[in-house]
Amino acid sequence: MSTRTQAQQNSGAVTNQKSVQIAQGNGGLLTKELIESLFLSAADKQLDTRHDSATVACEWPYLCMTTDSFVVTPAIFPGGNIGSLSVYGTVNDLAVVGATPKYISTAFILEEGFPLETLATIVNGLYKAALETGVSVITGDTKVVPKNAGGGVYITSTGIGYAESSPIWDTSLIREGDVILVSGTIGDHGATVMLAREEFGLGAELKSDCASVLPLVALIKDFEGVRFLRDPTRGGLSVLLHDIVQETGFDIQLDESKIPIQPEVESVCDILGLDPHVLACEGRLVAVVSPEISDEVLNKWRNLDCGRGAENIGIVKKCGGSKGRVLISTSIGGCRMMNQLEEEALPRIC
Amino acid sequence: MSTRTQAQQNSGAVTNQKSVQIAQGNGGLLTKELIESLFLSAADKQLDTRHDSATVACEWPYLCMTTDSFVVTPAIFPGGNIGSLSVYGTVNDLAVVGATPKYISTAFILEEGFPLETLATIVNGLYKAALETGVSVITGDTKVVPKNAGGGVYITSTGIGYAESSPIWDTSLIREGDVILVSGTIGDHGATVMLAREEFGLGAELKSDCASVLPLVALIKDFEGVRFLRDPTRGGLSVLLHDIVQETGFDIQLDESKIPIQPEVESVCDILGLDPHVLACEGRLVAVVSPEISDEVLNKWRNLDCGRGAENIGIVKKCGGSKGRVLISTSIGGCRMMNQLEEEALPRIC
Repeated sequence: MSTRTQAQQNSGAVTNQKSVQIAQGNGGLLTKELIESLFLSAADKQLDTRHDSATVACEWPYLCMTTDSFVVTPAIFPGGNIGSLSVYGTVNDLAVVGATPKYISTAFILEEGFPLETLATIVNGLYKAALETGVSVITGDTKVVPKNAGGGVYITSTGIGYAESSPIWDTSLIREGDVILVSGTIGDHGATVMLAREEFGLGAELKSDCASVLPLVALIKDFEGVRFLRDPTRGGLSVLLHDIVQETGFDIQLDESKIPIQPEVESVCDILGLDPHVLACEGRLVAVVSPEISDEVLNKWRNLDCGRGAENIGIVKKCGGSKGRVLISTSIGGCRMMNQLEEEALPRIC
Repeated sequence: MSTRTQAQQNSGAVTNQKSVQIAQGNGGLLTKELIESLFLSAADKQLDTRHDSATVACEWPYLCMTTDSFVVTPAIFPGGNIGSLSVYGTVNDLAVVGATPKYISTAFILEEGFPLETLATIVNGLYKAALETGVSVITGDTKVVPKNAGGGVYITSTGIGYAESSPIWDTSLIREGDVILVSGTIGDHGATVMLAREEFGLGAELKSDCASVLPLVALIKDFEGVRFLRDPTRGGLSVLLHDIVQETGFDIQLDESKIPIQPEVESVCDILGLDPHVLACEGRLVAVVSPEISDEVLNKWRNLDCGRGAENIGIVKKCGGSKGRVLISTSIGGCRMMNQLEEEALPRIC
């Protein structure tokens, strides 16, 4: 590394530019300089660039692996940016299978002309989130594509976590009478990103819920009676609950008045004709638990800042139709099926 | 999985379409159908879509991790496609640190309107390469971006391999008098992709060298005297050798007449004004070895189809300047410095 750091000091080719150049993706000197000036300084030695693969000691019985491409626009939004999101999203996917996140790789696809200052903000957000969640970014890649062949910046994060056993929570454990808990308001991320595009001229004071769910999982990890955990991201609460009814064959009965939604999110949805149930969250946790422990889980979660808005939103019921359904009791005494995301497209939401 | 497979049979939404739609990236029903119709059928059960993280047993002392985004255009080229390339590239990065590739994740960023038939070819190429190289694709992701915010298809592959020790080969082991070997002709991939873009009206019968280097590594893994291995990809032989002189401080003296280059590649380079030394390979291996074993390595490699064109191209020398240089003895008795990739940009070559 030392010789490369010297090379960086001897050259100002990158720092004299204000936006990403196509030649910075060719794998040569300019690529090295970009990596050194932006990534290595933010990485604080966790990134090993000397080999194309990073090597770490491995001392656990099970290994969990997850990957996600992040294509959100705008890349910086109230409450986070694509860099922090790429870490939280990956950490959360590991957390919900009971794994302890350990290592992460990040691959950047940059569009020619993307502002380097914005990229620096994103890289810093990424490493700050990594530090907070206890994962090390041990390897990465940087490609540059020509103008109009990219979306500014795309990040693909892959996470490795360790586990003492194969997944302890699974939809196959879900039983009639189980309770559905959500750790906070839904749709904050989706509504914030839609607003941040400024295509609608709305100015609500919203911010993304983009955060790690590790503290929420840690509180209940040793509880008997936790059946299934998942973070509702793309497709929101609706896709998550429809996955459950599809896999188990049960119905889920929700109480509309209990589903926590911020008034600002409701307003944005009313105006834009969106359904908050399909809007992405990026820091919420949904748990299916036995009725015996549901109050204790809620109380524990509510003691955390990130779980203050936790609610019991419904129960698992015997199937009343030909296949599992997600039903919502409305405040006026009616009952309807939850909208299942199919045609609605909110592209580049995460 | 069974309920999801049923859902696929019950719906023809995807198969009635011929190109990727934006709603296929929303995480809902259409995303599931895309994954089921394209990926799961090709994956032959190695892909676990029930959790956001895949879990595998882990029984080795060291774990190696590598990631690369592939953005090559065209996505299908003579000798391979972006799918097979994404597997070989990842497998090769693990092979050159002495690891045995085990698991891979693949994240697709698709551009709205990308032909589904082309995507199927790519996905099949990917799984065929995985089968050949003995890696399992255990997790993945699919995002769809709007037209003009992507490049058709981008794939980010992350590989995990196991190793009995931390990297056994390293530039720090390189000594004066060591020999530089290359396993075959250089620049085939780069020249093929440039030609396949059909921007130049040339019609040479070239194909990419896109392949696994695992068989080449396996032959010499137990040899004493192997110092350093790497596959020359983006930036070609030049970037690889310049990395070595920069890290070691030695000079490298190459014999121009020994560097294997196909006549077709030479022609393409002459016409387009390209330097074959900076053109990407995707299935070649460069080894720095002690002089005592160089002939034996060459002989072993040449017995393989993928090593038939192997050559001893030069030696490591004491530095004759203020810093390590890559020197080339020319056929007319001169000596020049190898072109160091800096400004030249061959975007989207891998």
